[in-house]
Amino acid sequence: MAAVAVATRWWLLLVLSAAELGVARALQPPNILLLLMDDGCWESCCCGHLPRVWVPAGSVLQMGWGDLGVYGEPSRETPNLDRMAVEGMLFPNFYTANPLCSPSRAALLTGRLPIRSGFYTTNGHARNAYTPQEIVGGIPDSELLLPALLKGAGYASKIVGKWHLGHRPQFHPLKHGFDEWFGSPNCHFGPYDNKARPNIPVYRDQEMVGRFYEEFPINLKTGEANLTQIYLQEALEFIQRQQAAHRPFFLYWAVDATHAPIYASKPFLGTSQRGRYGDAIRELDDSVGRILRLLRDLSIAENTFVFFTSDNGAALISAPRQGGSNGPFLCGKQTTFEGGMREPAIAWWPGHIPAGQVSHQLGSIMDLFTTSLSLAGLEPPRDRAIDGLDLLPAMLQGRLTDRPIFYYRGNTLMAVTLGQYKAHFWTWTNSWEEFKQGIDFCPGQNVSGVTTHSQEEHTKLPLIFHLGRDPGERFPLSVASIEYLDALRRITPVVQQHQEALVPGQPQLNVCNRAVMNWAPPGCEKLGKCLTPPESVPEKCSWPH
Amino acid sequence: MAAVAVATRWWLLLVLSAAELGVARALQPPNILLLLMDDGCWESCCCGHLPRVWVPAGSVLQMGWGDLGVYGEPSRETPNLDRMAVEGMLFPNFYTANPLCSPSRAALLTGRLPIRSGFYTTNGHARNAYTPQEIVGGIPDSELLLPALLKGAGYASKIVGKWHLGHRPQFHPLKHGFDEWFGSPNCHFGPYDNKARPNIPVYRDQEMVGRFYEEFPINLKTGEANLTQIYLQEALEFIQRQQAAHRPFFLYWAVDATHAPIYASKPFLGTSQRGRYGDAIRELDDSVGRILRLLRDLSIAENTFVFFTSDNGAALISAPRQGGSNGPFLCGKQTTFEGGMREPAIAWWPGHIPAGQVSHQLGSIMDLFTTSLSLAGLEPPRDRAIDGLDLLPAMLQGRLTDRPIFYYRGNTLMAVTLGQYKAHFWTWTNSWEEFKQGIDFCPGQNVSGVTTHSQEEHTKLPLIFHLGRDPGERFPLSVASIEYLDALRRITPVVQQHQEALVPGQPQLNVCNRAVMNWAPPGCEKLGKCLTPPESVPEKCSWPH
Repeated sequence: MAAVAVATRWWLLLVLSAAELGVARALQPPNILLLLMDDGCWESCCCGHLPRVWVPAGSVLQMGWGDLGVYGEPSRETPNLDRMAVEGMLFPNFYTANPLCSPSRAALLTGRLPIRSGFYTTNGHARNAYTPQEIVGGIPDSELLLPALLKGAGYASKIVGKWHLGHRPQFHPLKHGFDEWFGSPNCHFGPYDNKARPNIPVYRDQEMVGRFYEEFPINLKTGEANLTQIYLQEALEFIQRQQAAHRPFFLYWAVDATHAPIYASKPFLGTSQRGRYGDAIRELDDSVGRILRLLRDLSIAENTFVFFTSDNGAALISAPRQGGSNGPFLCGKQTTFEGGMREPAIAWWPGHIPAGQVSHQLGSIMDLFTTSLSLAGLEPPRDRAIDGLDLLPAMLQGRLTDRPIFYYRGNTLMAVTLGQYKAHFWTWTNSWEEFKQGIDFCPGQNVSGVTTHSQEEHTKLPLIFHLGRDPGERFPLSVASIEYLDALRRITPVVQQHQEALVPGQPQLNVCNRAVMNWAPPGCEKLGKCLTPPESVPEKCSWPH
Repeated sequence: MAAVAVATRWWLLLVLSAAELGVARALQPPNILLLLMDDGCWESCCCGHLPRVWVPAGSVLQMGWGDLGVYGEPSRETPNLDRMAVEGMLFPNFYTANPLCSPSRAALLTGRLPIRSGFYTTNGHARNAYTPQEIVGGIPDSELLLPALLKGAGYASKIVGKWHLGHRPQFHPLKHGFDEWFGSPNCHFGPYDNKARPNIPVYRDQEMVGRFYEEFPINLKTGEANLTQIYLQEALEFIQRQQAAHRPFFLYWAVDATHAPIYASKPFLGTSQRGRYGDAIRELDDSVGRILRLLRDLSIAENTFVFFTSDNGAALISAPRQGGSNGPFLCGKQTTFEGGMREPAIAWWPGHIPAGQVSHQLGSIMDLFTTSLSLAGLEPPRDRAIDGLDLLPAMLQGRLTDRPIFYYRGNTLMAVTLGQYKAHFWTWTNSWEEFKQGIDFCPGQNVSGVTTHSQEEHTKLPLIFHLGRDPGERFPLSVASIEYLDALRRITPVVQQHQEALVPGQPQLNVCNRAVMNWAPPGCEKLGKCLTPPESVPEKCSWPH
């Protein structure tokens, strides 16, 4: 792994003033705390006997644009996230890099589109792929991850929650720059029988400490699980420890209560107007409130940059009981419509980011990579293409940068947004076969010629929408209009340049093998929980969407 | 008109302390200012070079639930309304009484469902009707309107903008309790030729002062019109005059810039991310800001109750260029889905209504009648059924009252909401014939068996939705579920009681006649603008929706 990060401001200051500890402390680069939700939504609603005081804004890990009060969720059950937005900056035009979890998370930590880092498949055209436990691939060693780079500025780092960049030991967080890990390599699906399929392990650092549905119970019937509380304690303990050691920290809090199967702890179950999904949102909202409160109590709020977002749009296929809301947007997770990729996003850094502001900067989850490096006084790697933008000018000076947002599905550029215009080169929700079986990524929505059930190519004459007038992508511009031609004229060279310069990475999500599942994770011997893997039979993974 | 209003608190105090003018002033009942938007929407969005400071909440006259920043509109272009919500109380569960303008406005001013006041038609089953200029009927003399009742507590009253309760002289605002009027009796459609159809007049009090597209120009091509600025000045002048006279006032500001054809004045045209509709929203938002600022500047903010809402859901048929957004809700204007009847709503009364609160009270536009009487120390009429609830307990003490919301379309009870459950007894969007011609009340939305194009009866086994989990009405509860049966058991007696006690008023919207159009309004002689009416030919009005 080449160390290409170049130290600048903070690092130099630290070196220069190393003798004067007091000064060095004051000049310490800010802590970085990324709160990533799962299957997130634009609003978040709740009701009734709940807190009635409402303050605007906030966003929730793995949830949709529409799941927060500040994003218009009618139940208004996210007072802490709404308050976070009041105290910070809201980004209504913030995007993930993929409508599915693993590629989004790879993009966040590498600052690169999944097509570059290899987090895609070529097994089919325009197919979403992720890291189930049959997957053979994972994050390549050649990728430079944010925690590894932040080490160059003296940061201690921890990931709490879902990793999802490969579960085989060579892909684990501690092999890619994190100092600590508490959480799971895959989704908390289950329970499995530990014969055809093992339950997912939970790790502390390099070794497993148990499995979901065993040492870490999730009651599918009642929805009860203490995982969010455990993840909260892990976060609070890490923050306190780094503060005591006067060490800058990078904490990546990647919780998954809003990913099906939805769970919440007992005090939150049954408290939301929105059912179990709302219970989970309320617990996450409460946890975010506690984390921010600790930062204030420790007097490090003004030296801690916090960003809240989600990995992809709400999983409408699981709605209404297990899925969130994408507010006014079209479709959800798995699709490259706005509901699949526009995310709630809040930046919070008291004393630096002005309170109660909205930035209309087109933002991307990949920007968190570049912005975090900038906060640490580091420059992004120069030996590779980086897609992330430094958002500090937008956050601190209100400057807007014109930049495109690319919407990929697997190996295919489906759409691009530039300014207010979004051009679709391909449209697809899912196959007719799936749709007829009731698998619907756009329940209740149907835009003729847009939410297509076969892959429709529009590369010669893209469907273009004006997202200001028509955020729901319901009314394509007339191809005969001057507005269409003007938009196309601006978009075409940007796409051409992107595609000409693109060097796709080796696809990591093509090969599956039951033998690589979590049969005998490191540490299983100590727990007496090693299982016997089946014979190794590599095969092409099947990606239906 | 029987004077049944009974003076209570304020009135008695005024009488008792009449000699002490200073005290009497302090005890004056609060001014009442109702801001009613047209075809309103839940969010309101805008972008770019616009004000970047964002504060939550607010709602816009004749617009949809989704048209305000505080309701999640991605462009966030309503800083004044958002601030109004921060300083006041937001009602996310607030409803109009009808998905169309005239009946809603009659309900607001009478506190009664349109089926009681006669603001409906029996020409067809479940047909929306309003007051085009061919209509013969209007608000009956037997109805008691809010401004007439408020006279009993010494209020001066004015309506600015669209009346819509009948344009023939006997139906005018000054015949039904208002002291002053500046505005129009009908929508600002046009331009007409003054031969087959006259242009709509604009009145000052009892006489016309010009016509739309003539003395009051609206440029359909550019969208330019100064009407909102004129309506704003009328409001500001009235407030200042009543304040100088130390008289409590009731101002009903019923502006219509967000009703097609959408207009804005020059300084606002082209400033919104959302196109012309956004320009209109921005001008209304700015106007609301100016009105509230004047109340503060005159030091009467703490003695002025302000409520902001809209008459029906956004007209999606006009979207995206002439229609707003209903956020996460189903369909729009003309329908009894949430998008047609849930409205933005903000109460503002500094020093009385606590700031930054959300009330989950199920509220209705008819509550503004009862609440206004309560503010004035008056009781609602006892000789008739009143549907409005006094919202002061919800606003001042946070108390929630269990009450149903009835959704009528013309003469038919289409649906009811009780608590979190909404039961549809009839579903209909519009006819297949219309739909095939491109008239679509639910563009991009299609919920099988719900957004039906024929009138479907479900009175025996209603479609029931849980609005907390499923505000978009996409997933009807299974009729075999315990939850369905429990909800039905609660809803059935409430509906039965309502229907047994209901005495429908004489339908006012059945008969049309070209001879009653605005040919020669009072005052036309002075302006030399009298036109000759055609022969009187009464006929049944045709109501297609």
